[in-house]
Amino acid sequence: MRSVTVELGSRSYPIHIGRGLLSCAELLLARMSVPRAVVVSNEVVAPLYLDRLVTALRGAGVDVSTLVLPDGEIHKDRASLDAIHDALLAGCAERSTTLIALGGGVTGDVAGFAAATYQRGMPFIQVPTTLLAQVDSSVGGKTGINHPLGKNMIGAFHQPRLVLADLDTLDTLPERELKAGLAEVIKYGLIRDREFLAWLEENVERLTAREAEALAFAIERSCIDKAQVVAADETESGLRAILNFGHSFGHAIEAGAGYGVWLHGEAVAAGTMMAAELSHRIGWLDAADVARIESLLRRAGLPVRGPALGVDRYLDLMSHDKKMEAGRLRLVLLARIGEALVHAGAPEAEIRAAIAARSADHSRQ
Amino acid sequence: MRSVTVELGSRSYPIHIGRGLLSCAELLLARMSVPRAVVVSNEVVAPLYLDRLVTALRGAGVDVSTLVLPDGEIHKDRASLDAIHDALLAGCAERSTTLIALGGGVTGDVAGFAAATYQRGMPFIQVPTTLLAQVDSSVGGKTGINHPLGKNMIGAFHQPRLVLADLDTLDTLPERELKAGLAEVIKYGLIRDREFLAWLEENVERLTAREAEALAFAIERSCIDKAQVVAADETESGLRAILNFGHSFGHAIEAGAGYGVWLHGEAVAAGTMMAAELSHRIGWLDAADVARIESLLRRAGLPVRGPALGVDRYLDLMSHDKKMEAGRLRLVLLARIGEALVHAGAPEAEIRAAIAARSADHSRQ
Repeated sequence: MRSVTVELGSRSYPIHIGRGLLSCAELLLARMSVPRAVVVSNEVVAPLYLDRLVTALRGAGVDVSTLVLPDGEIHKDRASLDAIHDALLAGCAERSTTLIALGGGVTGDVAGFAAATYQRGMPFIQVPTTLLAQVDSSVGGKTGINHPLGKNMIGAFHQPRLVLADLDTLDTLPERELKAGLAEVIKYGLIRDREFLAWLEENVERLTAREAEALAFAIERSCIDKAQVVAADETESGLRAILNFGHSFGHAIEAGAGYGVWLHGEAVAAGTMMAAELSHRIGWLDAADVARIESLLRRAGLPVRGPALGVDRYLDLMSHDKKMEAGRLRLVLLARIGEALVHAGAPEAEIRAAIAARSADHSRQ
Repeated sequence: MRSVTVELGSRSYPIHIGRGLLSCAELLLARMSVPRAVVVSNEVVAPLYLDRLVTALRGAGVDVSTLVLPDGEIHKDRASLDAIHDALLAGCAERSTTLIALGGGVTGDVAGFAAATYQRGMPFIQVPTTLLAQVDSSVGGKTGINHPLGKNMIGAFHQPRLVLADLDTLDTLPERELKAGLAEVIKYGLIRDREFLAWLEENVERLTAREAEALAFAIERSCIDKAQVVAADETESGLRAILNFGHSFGHAIEAGAGYGVWLHGEAVAAGTMMAAELSHRIGWLDAADVARIESLLRRAGLPVRGPALGVDRYLDLMSHDKKMEAGRLRLVLLARIGEALVHAGAPEAEIRAAIAARSADHSRQ
């Protein structure tokens, strides 16, 4: 088992990464206030792993109830949030009861927001079952739901007590979702970890082939990168924004295509290319850097072009994103490979050109 | 103008108390990140005071939009929360925009929760227009909405940047609401401030007569008491719970009678008598103390008996309250006048007897 700590003073917490962790109830119990828990999962993950987790918890003397929600980004909404709150109240969950999210990023984000707001905050544990959730969304305390006018617009910061990444759960992960997770893994290399990026360029095929040792290393390294950024800037007043590299474009793709049509990681991959293209157009990256990024994303099986929404629609959707400052778009761009900066000064003409060049609107493929 | 500071490190904020403050836009502007605001008010308060506030803000160069919601405890619900989020998104409010609540406790609690969760937290200013909101709900960062199964069950801690208590707004406050506010004022005397309680016993008729100097003193003293408790225990891991004196019983009254039938302060007054009665039955207060409390509440024009819900219904409603610990009721009781303690050991028979003695179920009036 590998372990990474997110250093947040009295709210620090461990991320455990390894095989068979769903059955290690003691790891969870050690982080609970009282031996009482509600597990929230989804219709895809529950049939595969819910029994294993619940059986282990009950064996350790934990009073457990469960709630299974529909799966998918379109269910990261008010209805799912309300369903969790209703179930907590109907089951008389107390402020000391622990909410456990068993599933991917959607389950973790919605359940985490429900935990943040139930009785003004209850203990929360993340048990992510997708690569994307294990390397990104389960770590760092961002929780929330989507709104028809924008992704993650309603939410809260609420750190988990523990993140338990059981590598066994990746065995059943659909190929497309595994690849989508790699978009966030590659992101860490691009924004702050050149050494990791070089490792990825050597080993990306070992990851798509699900080699256990390679996956364990990539997840640990991703969590170390994210934990360091979160520890330095928990509530995104500065540095943490670099984690949104590719996400302003990506969120527009997700919303514009209709939530759930593009996976989050796929949209981030195409958004990464738009951000890289823009970084090149304002003179920060050279063309070879952009080609290098595109090559790695392609080898990971990820899309490198956004859908044909029309450039105006992209800009409209991006203006509803959270990264606005006095009416200007704040975008995360690459000063060079391995170094991201937040920049509000990119000319609109260049933003438009980058979107056009890296979307199917003007496909030259 | 009197000012009290809530000491919370980098998140400390001032409470200003005085006449004509709605027109002092500079006080608000000084606490905003950017000169952009959305004012949330209700249908009763908006016709009286919204123009005054908006005109002042615009005069100071602030870009202001407004949203007016229905009034009343039954509207402290998901629908109001959603309406605020929808309006913020439709108006392209940014994370740096300030949300201003102009109204009573309901408006402040719902708007505060919307601010806590919009883009994971936006700046928030409280402009309370009822006595209850000025002495209690606007101070300390508790925000939230009700759920059919319990009051304030969904919410967050989100401290305001500023509390602006304009005494002018009390001129139009209905008599019944003024008296309801006095229940929370008296609470501070009972739980931690014997000197203030003695002052109230000398001056309560000056308060019901709305003497300006008396009101200003009572609001300032209440805010000082509350600010000290909040500074010592922001998220209610210990001491802060004493502020809930009378509230477990009171919440049961509010929910049992139907939200809005009893005003919050009225329910707290009757709940105060139940808590005092129970404190007497377990040997903490003597009978003369209980009579002294009843006398002051009566002089303030407040109810001293709960409605006839039936004792079982009271206990059922209280079991859904947030103050549960391993299945036992944690109640705030008085060790003596001026000193409250959280106690989970009161025998159920005594809790039942206290409810029966101080509700209309067994009225002996």
